Parts: sequence; C-alpha cells; structure tokens
Amino acid sequence: MTEQSSVPAEEPVTTVAFVLYPGLTPLDMVGPLQVFGALSELVPGYRTVVVGERIEPMDSDVPVQLVPSHTFEDMPDPYALIVPGGFRPTLAAMADEGLLQRLREAAARSQVVGSVCTGSLLLGAAGLLEGREATSHWMYRDLLARFGATPVTRRWVEDGPVITAAGVSAGIDMALHLVDRLAGHEAARTVQLVLEYDPEPPLGPVDWTPVDAGAFVSFAQENLRTALTGHPGLLARLTA
Amino acid sequence: MTEQSSVPAEEPVTTVAFVLYPGLTPLDMVGPLQVFGALSELVPGYRTVVVGERIEPMDSDVPVQLVPSHTFEDMPDPYALIVPGGFRPTLAAMADEGLLQRLREAAARSQVVGSVCTGSLLLGAAGLLEGREATSHWMYRDLLARFGATPVTRRWVEDGPVITAAGVSAGIDMALHLVDRLAGHEAARTVQLVLEYDPEPPLGPVDWTPVDAGAFVSFAQENLRTALTGHPGLLARLTA
Repeated sequence: MTEQSSVPAEEPVTTVAFVLYPGLTPLDMVGPLQVFGALSELVPGYRTVVVGERIEPMDSDVPVQLVPSHTFEDMPDPYALIVPGGFRPTLAAMADEGLLQRLREAAARSQVVGSVCTGSLLLGAAGLLEGREATSHWMYRDLLARFGATPVTRRWVEDGPVITAAGVSAGIDMALHLVDRLAGHEAARTVQLVLEYDPEPPLGPVDWTPVDAGAFVSFAQENLRTALTGHPGLLARLTA
Repeated sequence: MTEQSSVPAEEPVTTVAFVLYPGLTPLDMVGPLQVFGALSELVPGYRTVVVGERIEPMDSDVPVQLVPSHTFEDMPDPYALIVPGGFRPTLAAMADEGLLQRLREAAARSQVVGSVCTGSLLLGAAGLLEGREATSHWMYRDLLARFGATPVTRRWVEDGPVITAAGVSAGIDMALHLVDRLAGHEAARTVQLVLEYDPEPPLGPVDWTPVDAGAFVSFAQENLRTALTGHPGLLARLTA
C-alpha cells in the first residue's frame, strides 16, 4: 500500500488505570478518578480507564454496584495503576492469589503503582512494597511492615515508582499531587477548581485522640481474623 | 393467628436515598453516600439506598458505570433524598420532564431534600427551590435565581427542608453536617475518622481568582446552549 492512510498518527496518551474489585470502598477509587477525569477534559493526551476481572457489575461497600470499562487483558499499558482499598473484602483479598497476580502483571506494565487506603495492603501482599516507604488507612498502616515496607504517617507517600495514600478521602489529595507533577500547577489548580475541592469539614480536622489512645486496635485485629479465617498462614504472618 | 410471630418488631429506620441518573458525576453521589454508609455501620437505625429509573448500569462522566439498588417505586420513604449533579448531562436533564416528575414525587415522600453541585439545578427545574436560599457548583450558582431561588455562596446552605451543597466534593462536608445534626458530634467525628477525611489539598485551598475574573462565564453559557439545544423555551428562561 503506497497510499497515505487517512487515519491520523496516534498521539501518545497517558493512561491512568484504576483497579475495580468486589467489595471495595467506591470513594477510594472515585475521588482520584474524578481528578484525572477532569484533567483529561482540560488537557489533551490524558485518559482514565477502570479495569476489572470482567466487565460486569461488582458489589461495593455501599448499595451501588460499579462496572469497569476494561478487563486487565484489554487495558492499555498505563502510566499509573491505582489500587483502591476497602474494609473486610479488601482484607480478604490479601489472600486472593488470582487478584494479586493480576496486580503484579499490571504493575509490570505501569510506570507508577499507587494505592488509596487499604489498597496498599494488596500491593504489599502482592510483594510490590518490599523496601519501600508506604502508608495506608490509619487502622491498618502498621501492617505494612509485615510486607517488608516502612509504614509512614503522611497523607500520601512517594518512594520511587510507588505512591500510596492514607485512608479513603486521601486519594483526592494524592491524585492532585500527581496531576501537579504531570501537568503542572495551573492544570492542578484548575482541576481543583472544577471539582470545587475547597474542603470545610464542619467539625474541623480529624480528631486523632481515639486513634492515639489505641481505641481501635482490637477491632482491627478482629476484622483481620474474620476476613482471613480460611488462611491461617497469612493471618499468622499479619497478627503474630 | 394467636401465636406470637418470631419476626422481631420492625425498628424505625432512617433512610438516606441518593438519586442516580445517566451521565452524573459519581463523586457528587459517592462522597455523601460513603459518609452515610459509615454512619449506618456505626449506629443502628440508618440505611442508604441508591435509586434510579431502572436497576441497570448507567453511564457517568468517567469510565465507570453505576447500578442503583432500588427503583423509585420500591424505594422506602426516605428521611433525606439527595440529588447529585454533573456537567452537560445534568444540564440537559433540566429538560427531562420524566426525571423532574420522579424528583417531585420522591421529594414529597422525604423530610429533607438535598443536592450536591448542579443537582440543585434539577431541584430548581422541578420547582422545589422556589423562595429558598440555595447553592450549586460555582459555575452555575447564579442560574438558581431563574428558578425562584436566592443563590448563596457557601459550602452548603440549609433553608427549611432543603439543603444544597456547592460543587462536587462539597457533598462530603454537607453530609457530615447532616450526620452531626442527626446523630451528634461523636458519630460525625467517628465517621470523619473512618473516612480519614482530614484534607490536605497539595496546593492549598481553591484559588478563586479566575472565577472572580469571570473567566468561565462564556464557557458556562456555551455548555447550556449545547445541552438544551432542543429546548428553546427553557434555554431562553436560563440565558435571557
């Protein structure tokens, strides 16, 4: 064929991929997804995908189901792969070798691997946090040490190609930081304005007193025992 | 039947219902949904439902579809009905008389009617904001006057049984305020802690300079004209 194709040359596209799995906390995913969604509306060359085992409705921890846009097989190689967290189903997923293998393979195709909330426990269980500083939901942050990571108490933590955010809503802050790094201050400020992310928690910042007092330690342990009841080896590794 | 039933007497349940419709911005809904979801885990007597025209996947403004838990017909009478917003599909929905009628009927079954972001435009188009103070996403807030409301620049605005939040992420603050009012400070603080809602926007608060400079006025008008192209009467009412 000597005729010139009328198909335009493909522009390089920066893809940010979010992993969807049953039982997750939707806000972990939807917060940063809207941040990158706004970026892709504002600046050419960005796109988001939501990737799951199958393109079908998945339960979450609230009464809404979510449907991914891509399977792992048909997902374009992402710039960043973000793994959201959740409560008991995410704790149980630490023992889901099929999901962990998906995460390892997808991470190998990504330049940046990120997590929100207890999503970092899945990265840890997949062996992707060894030797890294990382964070998680405050209730399970210390557990990261069992996966060879160094737990850090910050809103988000970057260590080489790994970026992890604290609990649930922290994914919004982490995503704005990534947008700032990728596309600059002006783009990040405009995304923030579009999402009107100018927080006013009615009772002020989080009161960390009950956490510092250890009020949730036995609750956290009990959840681990419930979630990993069929996996005594992993449970022992995490609670011994 | 003289035997006593073994079914326990039904406890009164406070239901918070979120309206799902095609094209919405998921964060508008998922933010407050997780707030009330956490409340329902922590305090007995609360439940959340997500209500839509049909229980089937609906597109959103990011590449994830959402599936409601209830139809309008099978939804329990809610304490609060919350209408999320969105961008062009929500602007277009101001002309969707079927949806507006659903909202009027559902509002009549609710004690509190709320919105997030441009969801207040749908409340306005349904005639539910007449004579009320209200807010919306900053880009469309002034439009509320066309529906007989008084636009107010605040994170959230309460006027009688109507509560409206500013853009997208403001729904989280509004929901925490409602939890505080319904269940008290301690419950609201615990919900905030569970969601680790301790925001740290990496570039600080929103920079309102471009908004104050009117940089988005013509963009907002153009979006209205695109969204309401087949509805010249409504378009004239909103742009004249």
